[in-house]
Amino acid sequence: MFQSVKERRTIRKYLQKDISEDLLNDLLETSCRTATVGNMQVYSIVVTRDALMKEKLAPAHFNQPMVKQAPVVLTFCADFNRFSQWCRERNAEPGYDNLLSFLNAATDALLVAQTFCTLAEAAGLGTCYLGTAIYNPQLIIDTLGLPELVFPVIAVTVGYPDERPDQVDRLSVEAVVHRERYHAFSPEDIDRLYCTKESLEENRKYVAENKKETLAQVFTEVRYTREVNEALSANLLEILKQQKFL
Amino acid sequence: MFQSVKERRTIRKYLQKDISEDLLNDLLETSCRTATVGNMQVYSIVVTRDALMKEKLAPAHFNQPMVKQAPVVLTFCADFNRFSQWCRERNAEPGYDNLLSFLNAATDALLVAQTFCTLAEAAGLGTCYLGTAIYNPQLIIDTLGLPELVFPVIAVTVGYPDERPDQVDRLSVEAVVHRERYHAFSPEDIDRLYCTKESLEENRKYVAENKKETLAQVFTEVRYTREVNEALSANLLEILKQQKFL
Repeated sequence: MFQSVKERRTIRKYLQKDISEDLLNDLLETSCRTATVGNMQVYSIVVTRDALMKEKLAPAHFNQPMVKQAPVVLTFCADFNRFSQWCRERNAEPGYDNLLSFLNAATDALLVAQTFCTLAEAAGLGTCYLGTAIYNPQLIIDTLGLPELVFPVIAVTVGYPDERPDQVDRLSVEAVVHRERYHAFSPEDIDRLYCTKESLEENRKYVAENKKETLAQVFTEVRYTREVNEALSANLLEILKQQKFL
Repeated sequence: MFQSVKERRTIRKYLQKDISEDLLNDLLETSCRTATVGNMQVYSIVVTRDALMKEKLAPAHFNQPMVKQAPVVLTFCADFNRFSQWCRERNAEPGYDNLLSFLNAATDALLVAQTFCTLAEAAGLGTCYLGTAIYNPQLIIDTLGLPELVFPVIAVTVGYPDERPDQVDRLSVEAVVHRERYHAFSPEDIDRLYCTKESLEENRKYVAENKKETLAQVFTEVRYTREVNEALSANLLEILKQQKFL
């Protein structure tokens, strides 16, 4: 398993081969052994196999082609709805319509999602995370019929790989691991840590294609701009309120 | 690996045996292959091995004994600080002081944390999540010296197991997996789904010890009360602002 994690790459092209119900159920059931806050299991997973449902979900993920092409799309949701219903039916008054509870439930959903991906990849499947779930939550909520206290935190496409892309670069462990206390980086540290990434042929091309001076500018001016981040944050806040999490 | 996930249990008691630097580094480095938003790797991991540092961290985790007893405590943080520094040093203006960016960074941190735990458990180590990281973030921020745009989202204690507790119950997959659309549960569904959990000897004892009528009341009136959830949510909001994420 170490091996499959070490060699992992995101897979966006899938064979037109279904994932059997047995395998999918085994993966889902095993993933549900993941630790959860207070063993409340405040998450849900919505399985999309139906072509029409994938078509409806696709715009929420900016029509990235893998949504329609993958045999299975999973939407992992923070879910305090079921737990709250259980409480009410047991003469207990739930108090989970707040930020802490949302983060607890989102944590549950994300940890289960990652166990699923690790297991699926070890079983020979390919996966692609769709962080876009929190960019366009309303369309997902409407399409999947998510009630209050349920919020889509991440989606994953899954299928048998029909590509083997190069592994993407990662920063050295030195960049992300701190011993005992968080250490600040000097400008020279930053140069050294980002040097490999910046000198990669594909990243140089990427900067040129976008007509920018630096790779960082592609992130701040094209991919993840302040303007879009702030608009999406406002939207997120509104929909968290609508779903009664705030 | 399926096996180690299927058989997983939270381990709170550890042998007084260190985890070698080689093993820990291998686990950390391999975990960093986990997918991250836009390959930005907006997370950090603070490793605590020092006894004095564990002692300082312990109150943030309500003095649960495993914090001081485990050879290693890991604090996984949402981190847009390093990335923003890189941007500024590359003539790019970062715009990551907002809710969306916090959730993106928290997602990175949580997915990496779960890969770490899955790998550590497959390697024979035991782990225990400390969701308390978001309950008392200030003490963690102060102890570990976390700068702005860094926020502790979850902690994990790790060590060689010195116990083999029974596995805790889980709801059947039917409770958490929805096909195509989210389905509402009838009161009878809830009875059926929670029946096993409610009838467990340890849960019956737990209800009796807490002098409650139902297991749900132990959650709403003792463990995760509205009052505490709301106070911690207000605190969380304030510290997210202080760390410049909002």
